Amino acid sequence: MGDRAPLPFDPIERAGILWEKHVGDASSMRVATSIMRVQQLLIAEFDRVLKPLDLTFARFEVLRLVSFSREGRLPLSIIGERLMVHPTSVTNAIDRLVASGLVMRTPDDQDRRRVYASLTSDGKRVLRRATKALMDIDFGLATLDGRDRAQLFNVLRSVRSADFSD
Amino acid sequence: MGDRAPLPFDPIERAGILWEKHVGDASSMRVATSIMRVQQLLIAEFDRVLKPLDLTFARFEVLRLVSFSREGRLPLSIIGERLMVHPTSVTNAIDRLVASGLVMRTPDDQDRRRVYASLTSDGKRVLRRATKALMDIDFGLATLDGRDRAQLFNVLRSVRSADFSD
Repeated sequence: MGDRAPLPFDPIERAGILWEKHVGDASSMRVATSIMRVQQLLIAEFDRVLKPLDLTFARFEVLRLVSFSREGRLPLSIIGERLMVHPTSVTNAIDRLVASGLVMRTPDDQDRRRVYASLTSDGKRVLRRATKALMDIDFGLATLDGRDRAQLFNVLRSVRSADFSD
Repeated sequence: MGDRAPLPFDPIERAGILWEKHVGDASSMRVATSIMRVQQLLIAEFDRVLKPLDLTFARFEVLRLVSFSREGRLPLSIIGERLMVHPTSVTNAIDRLVASGLVMRTPDDQDRRRVYASLTSDGKRVLRRATKALMDIDFGLATLDGRDRAQLFNVLRSVRSADFSD
């Protein structure tokens, strides 16, 4: 994806010009299309650097979240809630992580229906390496200075404001 | 996805605080995670309003691009290049659009190996309705004013700058 030859023009800029000519205000279309494209570029980059560790970005996020928990374990339901993904996606990610020996599933002593995920020592090691790999590429955002990052975070935060009430 | 109850806190903000505590600078992680989440929210929203038209956002983009072409038709290879998607994805999208009667495939008179896509009259009608549906929700970005949009577009443009040379 990132390996194709660059186009001699910005395709989103061009789409915006044509949109204005044929449809009308292009400001939201240009931004939405940019977000789609940047997400695609970032995820391709993340998956590329995580592939040697047999991880995807989605599975990295699960490892990271569990590692941050106070007791070193989290109920599967909470993982889905925090990462804002469907319960099925969490189950799939956990299945893969258990199969690769990075995560353990443990039932609650009090409530046997509640299942926790915790990291194995392999899981902790792989998470450290994955974190380093992503930090080494600065999460694909090395072109942005501190001001750009703060602006981007704040503007995007208002788009995702329905996710939380604070 | 957008229908779940809001969390009592911003999960990306919280992840950032924990990241700073356990890992280090969280500025790129916070922005990258925000882009992932906003893309997920937007695509869910687009697919929701396009579903009654039996379209996805990816197929909408194909229709839009073809409709903007000077001659009303585009080679499949150019569609992939402009939308920056894999040739297989273009073929799949075109197959679906042909099956629903929105697009016609026509070979070039000069070069029989070159295949063009053009819109049927149904295709043009559905594209108009899809465009209106997306404009009605302001591409999911109604919370952003003109200044936010310009900032967002410009900062994201530098992240995707390897796509084009201009």
